[in-house]
Amino acid sequence: MLTGEQYRASLRDGREVYYDGERVEVADHPIFERAIQIAADSYDRYYKPEAGAISDYLQTPSTIEEMRDRAELKAEQLTSGSYVSLMTLLTAADRIESVRPQGSAAIRDYVREMQVADLRLVECITDAKGDRAKRPGQQEDPDAYLRVVERRADGVVVNGAKLHISGAPIGHELMTIPTKAMKPGEEDYAIAFSIPVSTPGVKTINVTSETPDMSFADMPLSEFKHDPVGFVIFDHVFVPNERVFLDGETEVAAAFAHSLGLWVRMNGLKNMADEADLMCGFASLLAEANGLDRVDHIKDKLAELVIHATLIRSTLEASILNSEVTDDGVVVPNEQYANAGKYHAAAYRTAMLQHIQDIAGGSLVTAPSSRDLESADVGHFVRKYMSTKQSVDGTYRLKLFHAAKDLTSGAHAGYNAVAQLQAGGGLYAQRTVTRGRYDLRAARAKALEAAGLSNPAEAE
Amino acid sequence: MLTGEQYRASLRDGREVYYDGERVEVADHPIFERAIQIAADSYDRYYKPEAGAISDYLQTPSTIEEMRDRAELKAEQLTSGSYVSLMTLLTAADRIESVRPQGSAAIRDYVREMQVADLRLVECITDAKGDRAKRPGQQEDPDAYLRVVERRADGVVVNGAKLHISGAPIGHELMTIPTKAMKPGEEDYAIAFSIPVSTPGVKTINVTSETPDMSFADMPLSEFKHDPVGFVIFDHVFVPNERVFLDGETEVAAAFAHSLGLWVRMNGLKNMADEADLMCGFASLLAEANGLDRVDHIKDKLAELVIHATLIRSTLEASILNSEVTDDGVVVPNEQYANAGKYHAAAYRTAMLQHIQDIAGGSLVTAPSSRDLESADVGHFVRKYMSTKQSVDGTYRLKLFHAAKDLTSGAHAGYNAVAQLQAGGGLYAQRTVTRGRYDLRAARAKALEAAGLSNPAEAE
Amino acid sequence: MLTGEQYRASLRDGREVYYDGERVEVADHPIFERAIQIAADSYDRYYKPEAGAISDYLQTPSTIEEMRDRAELKAEQLTSGSYVSLMTLLTAADRIESVRPQGSAAIRDYVREMQVADLRLVECITDAKGDRAKRPGQQEDPDAYLRVVERRADGVVVNGAKLHISGAPIGHELMTIPTKAMKPGEEDYAIAFSIPVSTPGVKTINVTSETPDMSFADMPLSEFKHDPVGFVIFDHVFVPNERVFLDGETEVAAAFAHSLGLWVRMNGLKNMADEADLMCGFASLLAEANGLDRVDHIKDKLAELVIHATLIRSTLEASILNSEVTDDGVVVPNEQYANAGKYHAAAYRTAMLQHIQDIAGGSLVTAPSSRDLESADVGHFVRKYMSTKQSVDGTYRLKLFHAAKDLTSGAHAGYNAVAQLQAGGGLYAQRTVTRGRYDLRAARAKALEAAGLSNPAEAE
Amino acid sequence: MLTGEQYRASLRDGREVYYDGERVEVADHPIFERAIQIAADSYDRYYKPEAGAISDYLQTPSTIEEMRDRAELKAEQLTSGSYVSLMTLLTAADRIESVRPQGSAAIRDYVREMQVADLRLVECITDAKGDRAKRPGQQEDPDAYLRVVERRADGVVVNGAKLHISGAPIGHELMTIPTKAMKPGEEDYAIAFSIPVSTPGVKTINVTSETPDMSFADMPLSEFKHDPVGFVIFDHVFVPNERVFLDGETEVAAAFAHSLGLWVRMNGLKNMADEADLMCGFASLLAEANGLDRVDHIKDKLAELVIHATLIRSTLEASILNSEVTDDGVVVPNEQYANAGKYHAAAYRTAMLQHIQDIAGGSLVTAPSSRDLESADVGHFVRKYMSTKQSVDGTYRLKLFHAAKDLTSGAHAGYNAVAQLQAGGGLYAQRTVTRGRYDLRAARAKALEAAGLSNPAEAE
Repeated sequence: MLTGEQYRASLRDGREVYYDGERVEVADHPIFERAIQIAADSYDRYYKPEAGAISDYLQTPSTIEEMRDRAELKAEQLTSGSYVSLMTLLTAADRIESVRPQGSAAIRDYVREMQVADLRLVECITDAKGDRAKRPGQQEDPDAYLRVVERRADGVVVNGAKLHISGAPIGHELMTIPTKAMKPGEEDYAIAFSIPVSTPGVKTINVTSETPDMSFADMPLSEFKHDPVGFVIFDHVFVPNERVFLDGETEVAAAFAHSLGLWVRMNGLKNMADEADLMCGFASLLAEANGLDRVDHIKDKLAELVIHATLIRSTLEASILNSEVTDDGVVVPNEQYANAGKYHAAAYRTAMLQHIQDIAGGSLVTAPSSRDLESADVGHFVRKYMSTKQSVDGTYRLKLFHAAKDLTSGAHAGYNAVAQLQAGGGLYAQRTVTRGRYDLRAARAKALEAAGLSNPAEAE
Repeated sequence: MLTGEQYRASLRDGREVYYDGERVEVADHPIFERAIQIAADSYDRYYKPEAGAISDYLQTPSTIEEMRDRAELKAEQLTSGSYVSLMTLLTAADRIESVRPQGSAAIRDYVREMQVADLRLVECITDAKGDRAKRPGQQEDPDAYLRVVERRADGVVVNGAKLHISGAPIGHELMTIPTKAMKPGEEDYAIAFSIPVSTPGVKTINVTSETPDMSFADMPLSEFKHDPVGFVIFDHVFVPNERVFLDGETEVAAAFAHSLGLWVRMNGLKNMADEADLMCGFASLLAEANGLDRVDHIKDKLAELVIHATLIRSTLEASILNSEVTDDGVVVPNEQYANAGKYHAAAYRTAMLQHIQDIAGGSLVTAPSSRDLESADVGHFVRKYMSTKQSVDGTYRLKLFHAAKDLTSGAHAGYNAVAQLQAGGGLYAQRTVTRGRYDLRAARAKALEAAGLSNPAEAE
Repeated sequence: MLTGEQYRASLRDGREVYYDGERVEVADHPIFERAIQIAADSYDRYYKPEAGAISDYLQTPSTIEEMRDRAELKAEQLTSGSYVSLMTLLTAADRIESVRPQGSAAIRDYVREMQVADLRLVECITDAKGDRAKRPGQQEDPDAYLRVVERRADGVVVNGAKLHISGAPIGHELMTIPTKAMKPGEEDYAIAFSIPVSTPGVKTINVTSETPDMSFADMPLSEFKHDPVGFVIFDHVFVPNERVFLDGETEVAAAFAHSLGLWVRMNGLKNMADEADLMCGFASLLAEANGLDRVDHIKDKLAELVIHATLIRSTLEASILNSEVTDDGVVVPNEQYANAGKYHAAAYRTAMLQHIQDIAGGSLVTAPSSRDLESADVGHFVRKYMSTKQSVDGTYRLKLFHAAKDLTSGAHAGYNAVAQLQAGGGLYAQRTVTRGRYDLRAARAKALEAAGLSNPAEAE
Repeated sequence: MLTGEQYRASLRDGREVYYDGERVEVADHPIFERAIQIAADSYDRYYKPEAGAISDYLQTPSTIEEMRDRAELKAEQLTSGSYVSLMTLLTAADRIESVRPQGSAAIRDYVREMQVADLRLVECITDAKGDRAKRPGQQEDPDAYLRVVERRADGVVVNGAKLHISGAPIGHELMTIPTKAMKPGEEDYAIAFSIPVSTPGVKTINVTSETPDMSFADMPLSEFKHDPVGFVIFDHVFVPNERVFLDGETEVAAAFAHSLGLWVRMNGLKNMADEADLMCGFASLLAEANGLDRVDHIKDKLAELVIHATLIRSTLEASILNSEVTDDGVVVPNEQYANAGKYHAAAYRTAMLQHIQDIAGGSLVTAPSSRDLESADVGHFVRKYMSTKQSVDGTYRLKLFHAAKDLTSGAHAGYNAVAQLQAGGGLYAQRTVTRGRYDLRAARAKALEAAGLSNPAEAE
């Protein structure tokens, strides 16, 4: 396992990273510093010095109880994304086994290797896509979907790009999989593999929700959450055979994306369940800080938040408690509950944040800054007029508003709104998946029985 | 245990039943016939001839597994209401034990007696309430809430009425409990008991969603569900001491209503989870019958129904799997999940039914009757113009519309809309209870930690 | 013009009417009596004895002021539908003029004839449709859409059926138009005409939301609104040339349906605006009758209803005040506002009714009947326990619940729910039309300007 | 009238302005530069050199036509706020006339003076409020609401603060009015006046949604909209008698806030109607740029946006077309429509923005910056992988995403979300006002008539 310091050092491997039009050394550039620090802290938290030890966070759960217990473990985005990637690969290994057994074997070796080496994996799935009305093979630019451009004895050469990639410049490995199902004739697009970020030809182009001189004093929630996101360019990149998990088997190309979908949604669901509790807490604190905690319509908005939080939590509970264990010993949560929960949480998330904005009032965006509070000239006015009463003083209330702005209305909140909405596919994709997982045949049978009818279509 | 025939006979006990302004013999009047028949069928289904046997449906579950298994058992309203009443009493027995131990003992004896005698209990809770802006003791008419008007050595005399009572004329026992919390000075209103429907002074005034000559040919879902509902009048009724569970202990008066609330909501949640599956089935069958099953916006409405059904089911799962077992061995489901689920199911139920109305189209209410279909003059036109294509013939499609009308748009559907909305309290009560059960202190602590703050109010 | 009595007499013209599988004489059968009576009353209300007089209700408005004023006029369904049909024909006359001028002329003559003869027109538009996934010409049964089966020198013979037809057995003329746009090759389906209900080969098959022995004592709102609806069968019916408005001109086949859509939606919008005010009134009265009028969450539900009513009313105002007057002098309301308003009103109508159900409580469906109230045995109990306080006595409150049930939860309410949802096309059709009428090009130009961009697609 | 240059110069009047804890010269500090520039541009746009000329934007409309025409005029926040302030004062002058005629006269003189001098007014209404559960006179800190602390022969001295004030450091006059209705005993809080920003004792503490080194290259919508907002401190400030509009007349204290409410909501409604069209435009452009414009669920989201835009526009139309003209010749728009429209627009605004986020996809927040696009190393990759097809090239699409991020998901979007929600009071206030303006008596009368009832409460 690696310490935080070892992790930092590992990033100086010649990787090609771009920010704001310039090539930069990721470990030295201030815009990446906070993200690296929080990832390093996470390394230190799970570090065990014994040789061959595996991080508790990256372990494969083998029972429902282990699955439930690990919901208590915390990690930042890079580490939780690594766990999602490992579980995705193991789940997919099961599903491609009959078609490409050597791929399944390569995956299982690779997962063990990563767990022991304690490296961080980056999910690379979404292609540039070009014209969404056309299939991969029909695009004007054939690279609109990442593809194999050359096959050699020792591996393949790929070309293309993956978009919306989170954490690429600060991770180690690019777990790269097809964005969707492929059809016969699209063999070059049915490619899954994993390679180091430092592989020649790989370039990352990054943005973040922070700006170069941003003051984080008034951003307690997001201070360490401005992860880099962006493009990963694969400019004629060579992938050795032992890292190729799928190559041309179009019939199982979707297995990876479906597996990732499940684990990304479970992870997103867990995060949104926790965030929903946080929202309830802020709503209650803000109501109290405004002297509004006994007002009926405020209590009713809190009830709405509480019901939301409880519904989300119930889908997480139902999904975990109805998990299945595969032959290979991997615990796979129930997809139907996970998908419905993820959809509901994402679809109503901004409406819930709006309740908080409504309870808080305009001070969310008009409250003075911490530096105003510290000013000898006007600091006492800020305290005086931000205070509610003796038990809610102005400094406390000002800082509560800063935190609530960070949650609901600041630059990072805007980033989060899009990220939560799109993670695991947009709302429509989530609705479609939920419908597809549902046992519609059983429901139709119940309806026919209730109606006293039989339906020819059900007969066969 | 009783057979269906014995149950029928048991109703001829002199009970005072009114329908449409007239006193009637319940076992002979056609308007009650369907409800009695379905209750009798339920008796026959669970009948075991051995002496001392207890109906599987009325058994007290003692483990989470038993609790989950019995969700598969089916019964009509009168029998399921009896189970709810028994569980309510056992749960309340626990909660009043420290204040009125003799009441707890009387309850436990009574529950065993009812289980063995295989009798049907009717939930009597809601008072007339008079002016809802005033408390029981402040009403212009002191009988607006049922109350003790005389205390004797052998029992008490009560006066008042219970409203919205389902099944009273066809049940055996009136489980009668305070409608809400009582305050000191309201001792006469803190009264809980159970007595036979045939007790002198008890009168029931009934309505149903059927009309005297209603043809049930086109109502396959509700044919046997037009339960009598209405007023139960207690006109100076004597209750013997052994049937008095609470008398004057205002501090625990709410224990009964809260217990009933939990079990009614669990039962309602179970029914709405099943009904939601039924809705998905009908939506799918109707879409197919109209040739619309491949249309995007129709599939999207089905997705909405499926997500609704899955959310409801997940709260039921989470509530059962997170049950607690009392010292007395009663399994009590988790209230937070049950309440949130019941609220969500009730709040969005009509919106879901509207999706079905939207998918089905106007034929829901304009389709000809079964008798038109059988007409020598026009039956062939009905078949011809109701048919979609060879695989969906006109007779099948007509009957599917009849069933869907019965579910969504007929007289019984209107009754159901109100019943589902109001069961276990209206929407606002359900929101309030959900908010009250939520661990707000933990949520506030999370929010404070995220904001890097401490709050004086949390200090103690 | 006709008096009510003359109208009644006019129905005895040999028309072929079916109800519940039997052929009936419409003017003598009790199930149609209420609908005939209300239509006759409407005749008497607008009757003017002068020769050549035209009903104020059926006049063609020629200015925006006249259009607005006539929103105050009231009429039952049959008469308002006749006005809608006349306006539809005049609007369509304008739109088909360049393609079939003799059709436009025939329409204008026909409209004048109908206005002077004071006859009632029935909108016949929706075909049986068979498999909705296929076009008219591709159906297994070619009659799934009404079509011309023979062309003679003096007219055409049509075969098929129109569904969801309201009022056919009690009206005079069947205004029959294509259900949607037609393509080349579908000339036989591009047929529009009007003929008397008594024409040989026309048969109507009817249902209503009343049942034979229904007591209307507790249905003050719907007592006279149980209109017959159902199928109109055209069994090889001859239509003379002077009554043929369109025959084979597929390119303008949609003009009739679009014109009808506009006028049906305007009429529906007007009715829903009035109904929304009625809902606000009932919500307020029920809150007061329950002693809940000062409770915050009740006032908030009332606010929701008021906002709904105001939004609907504003679209009606905006649509009328932005009307255009055609060259022919017909005032045509603004379609964009009318469509958006109709959609919003229909989409949220049941949610609004649910607020009323929530405010009212269970008594909506459990309150005793008027006959219980009049009973010597239990009437005094009904009054006593339905009363709130001296200012809200039990009789008043009981009758208020009966009316609110009739509005929200009875058999007619279920019928209304479907009728309001489907009138003018289901929700999806209304969304599509609203999107289609919107000036998207202008909105895109605004967005491009704001973004500082130009878009090649806008260039041409 | 003033030119832009003269406006700039006018800001160097010794005003006490704070930003980030430091006192600054507003005309020289870069953080205020953009806001000053846009206000100066607005001066130049409306400038007329004739002596005594009045800006077209600040004119008082005297007919409904003028009112409607001026909806086409454009101005930035400072100028539109000045118009709102002038109309507010004129409307209030009418309403306080019977109680304080000298106040009405002072207002009318003042409005004319401001129109001719072409100065900019700042709306100062919301007090610090302290504990919202207590009235102004009951606060622990008596300055929680701004109040008169001394009355002199020539004027009054006030102390307190106004919060959520927009544009104070770049405007000329502080139009200061009570935040709400006052009761007897609260005379010191019933104070309305207007004074220059440079008055001794006035200090403004400001924040903005921009940060010091923010690059505006990728923010085409908000580049010039980062207005300063914050506290206006009145530290024992003297107001001369001729600028005092109200002093102690508690019975009409609310007239100012109600008048402001109307005009602020009208202005907000106008802005949200225009913004809603902009949203439709962006949704359409983004769908097209992603190749998704023919996908059903995308078209359906666009329909939802179009319906929203149309509803908002209809309330604006209905409000203007139903305006009333006061005796004094001021056109006052209809409050009922304006309030309902403002509420609906604000309540569903974020849901509409979420549709755009959903259509756009993750590129909203992960798309590279303009500087990446210009990079010699990676610019060609950005163009390549952002492009959809030949007709939608990568540069255009990237810039479209930047603009859409600025609208929906950036720092300014977060600021806007709160501002639009809170302008004219939060959602609850808007619901309450709408309910209060509605003619409930008429609606109740309709309901009673429909129910065939009379209600004692309506009798008087």
